[in-house]
Amino acid sequence: MTTTNLRSLPPRGMRDLLPDEVALRDWATSVILQTYRSYGFTRIETPAIESIELLKRGEGGENLQLIYEILKRGEKLEKVLESIVTQVEGLSQAGSTPEAFLQSPAFKQSRNELSDLGLRFDLTVPLVRFYSNNQANLPNPFKSIQIGSVWRAESPQAGRFRQFTQCDIDIIGVKGNFAELELLKATADALLNLTFEDFVIRINDRRLLQDLALHCGFERSRLDSVFIAVDKLDKIGIDGIVKELKETGHPEPAIEKLKEIFEPIKPLLDNTALGGIEQFQQIVNHLPSFENSESLSELKELVAAVAAQTRDKYSIVFDPTLVRGMGYYTGPIFEIVVRGYNHSIAGGGRYDRMIEKFIDREVPACGFSIGFERIVAIMLEEGRKPAAIPNKLAFIYDPKRDQLADVAVSLNKLRADFEEVSLVPRKKELKKQLDQLVTQGFSHFCAFAGDPENLNVKELAPGG
Amino acid sequence: MTTTNLRSLPPRGMRDLLPDEVALRDWATSVILQTYRSYGFTRIETPAIESIELLKRGEGGENLQLIYEILKRGEKLEKVLESIVTQVEGLSQAGSTPEAFLQSPAFKQSRNELSDLGLRFDLTVPLVRFYSNNQANLPNPFKSIQIGSVWRAESPQAGRFRQFTQCDIDIIGVKGNFAELELLKATADALLNLTFEDFVIRINDRRLLQDLALHCGFERSRLDSVFIAVDKLDKIGIDGIVKELKETGHPEPAIEKLKEIFEPIKPLLDNTALGGIEQFQQIVNHLPSFENSESLSELKELVAAVAAQTRDKYSIVFDPTLVRGMGYYTGPIFEIVVRGYNHSIAGGGRYDRMIEKFIDREVPACGFSIGFERIVAIMLEEGRKPAAIPNKLAFIYDPKRDQLADVAVSLNKLRADFEEVSLVPRKKELKKQLDQLVTQGFSHFCAFAGDPENLNVKELAPGG
Repeated sequence: MTTTNLRSLPPRGMRDLLPDEVALRDWATSVILQTYRSYGFTRIETPAIESIELLKRGEGGENLQLIYEILKRGEKLEKVLESIVTQVEGLSQAGSTPEAFLQSPAFKQSRNELSDLGLRFDLTVPLVRFYSNNQANLPNPFKSIQIGSVWRAESPQAGRFRQFTQCDIDIIGVKGNFAELELLKATADALLNLTFEDFVIRINDRRLLQDLALHCGFERSRLDSVFIAVDKLDKIGIDGIVKELKETGHPEPAIEKLKEIFEPIKPLLDNTALGGIEQFQQIVNHLPSFENSESLSELKELVAAVAAQTRDKYSIVFDPTLVRGMGYYTGPIFEIVVRGYNHSIAGGGRYDRMIEKFIDREVPACGFSIGFERIVAIMLEEGRKPAAIPNKLAFIYDPKRDQLADVAVSLNKLRADFEEVSLVPRKKELKKQLDQLVTQGFSHFCAFAGDPENLNVKELAPGG
Repeated sequence: MTTTNLRSLPPRGMRDLLPDEVALRDWATSVILQTYRSYGFTRIETPAIESIELLKRGEGGENLQLIYEILKRGEKLEKVLESIVTQVEGLSQAGSTPEAFLQSPAFKQSRNELSDLGLRFDLTVPLVRFYSNNQANLPNPFKSIQIGSVWRAESPQAGRFRQFTQCDIDIIGVKGNFAELELLKATADALLNLTFEDFVIRINDRRLLQDLALHCGFERSRLDSVFIAVDKLDKIGIDGIVKELKETGHPEPAIEKLKEIFEPIKPLLDNTALGGIEQFQQIVNHLPSFENSESLSELKELVAAVAAQTRDKYSIVFDPTLVRGMGYYTGPIFEIVVRGYNHSIAGGGRYDRMIEKFIDREVPACGFSIGFERIVAIMLEEGRKPAAIPNKLAFIYDPKRDQLADVAVSLNKLRADFEEVSLVPRKKELKKQLDQLVTQGFSHFCAFAGDPENLNVKELAPGG
């Protein structure tokens, strides 16, 4: 390795992607796209940049803190800066201090006005804007694919990046389980086609979660903070949840009741051998009586329909403790976990109340998002590679001796027989160069002797 | 069309891309990628965000004015704002005015410190950084493909967008014509594979352009402004160039000489029937004596090699008036024009002195970039579409009657026979719905009767 010049590094938290990884990513993208298209989804694109007003509207949960804001340009920026300077001057005249100004609402307002645009932090907020903008030209129901980068200014840490790719499918305009069925099946099939096996779909319903919390006795107005605690079950365990709920001042009897319900369920969730409608019933037996709950019977129907189709390669598991972070979910929520890995590799749910904020009618919607970076990370860890081109020729020329026209004619001939023909200048040591070409995946070489009528193509023997 | 809610529009100069256009773009991307891969190029990716320091280093020409800058975050931003406030307060104490402060170098410095990152405005500056960062892990020569978005805050106008896609190939580490040959052939083949025909490669050499200007008597130190004027030949004609050169104060005899050389050449360039080595010689006959010029003989060799391979579907034309905007070119420069369209659809050239600014040795480099948006615009204008899926089934269910499990089983069966199976809820008027499905490209439908054992699949007759 040569010493890295500091100026050559990408910005903190960002990555350069080298050819081998991009080849794997391109392969994965095309497999996912092809699968989704076979389910009737069509791909759309929205710009990477959205108005800061849209991004900060409050659908993004904690992501709102992580938005990359874009500085205003030209006169617009000058106006904001002028206003700051004029205000400071005025306050200073009035005997106030810089510190006081920096704390003032007027200053905070000016600070917020420095940016008018921002980079998208997910693909759902832009989709909802896209749908409201283009609904007249879209089929109903509308089944979209989005594959694209999103940006979040997170604290850099291992395996977490500030620019990353998401693959979303969404169905807009379909109420209830038929949309969920397609989303779950399409996503599971995409993973199978990527040669993932042995994964688990965990499923719950926000309405059930709410019924459960109300049943325990938590206050309706404070359910959000209950869900935030429950969401951490995997990380902090039941005792951790109890502690957090106590700290945030929830009523002790409610906390006790929640603990009583969750404790016998936890081992059932950890037993990954279980799944399907059998596991569903076992869990239900441990829940308080919800017999009349519409959401529970819908969930059962969905689990049964998916479970019948898993080809024994994956399972579907009812997890009444599943929360999923975003505040906008209104019905079923789901995620996918690969056995042996901690993080979920896909997540989604129903969000029936989001589009009505843009257009004045209710439009049901449901989506499922593959965490593309996590999938790629697993494939890289397991050493998976896309199939190599079997028929790849290196044409070795001598820049000092060979005529350009002769090389051009020769290449033209060879392209008829090889899927890939690459022009490579001869290096000093041919033997060493041939070894490098093997490493680069070349199957054949032609050391050009200057005569297009006499092309000596040879196979490259790995290691020899 | 429904009325568009203002909040639903994408930011100014940005676009939502609908399914049909994305399908066309995806098809074009895959054709281009496949062609470039068959020439031994491999794809890389760099982040959309680069440090503002890198972006403003001066390789971007007039694009530097168009950078989207990203606001600093958290404490870093607070520090800059604090510094502005403190400075204003100090100056105000000293009896200065806000206006004076806004003009001061100290303020301009603070203003520049508001951003630490920016969005890339091209793919060449990031490539050079990428190469310096990763050279130890890249083959030599390194042949890269980049396909990605770039952002420029241009004044919005018809057909010009603030986010657009570029497709670049570059060869790093090869001196002279062999790299140019591969770039020109690969790009021409990509266009042929996209079913473009009848296009012209225009080629020149920056060294020739310089020799020509010096021969006329322009000052060496002011060549840039000569090239800026010559670059406008297509738009303002020779008289326009003469006028601009006079206005910028170049010596009259030099201007007169340039006019004398260009005037007889112009009709030869406009005669698009000419091309290849014949046209090359005709042009050379009109140029002042450059017989000993190395660049001219190299150019002749390149034109001859490419001209022999055009399959009569495109031509290569020597254009001594071709400039190409960027200041970093050091040798051959080229662009592609489709007959009947004004703008070039691809452009590139050799830039041997750019990488040495990052690493302390000279590394030759040459690139060719397809203007993806222009290609897509032409394809849309000409009504081109990617091949439709011949085997596309709409499965029509009744949400009020049908059982999810029955639908799931039925879909599973049908997926074996159809490339695409899409679940569609039954609408009130079946006849109207079937017409819509035809418009959406469906070839078959199955109106589900509730029984998975009895699936009645029918062909959809267009128009009937």
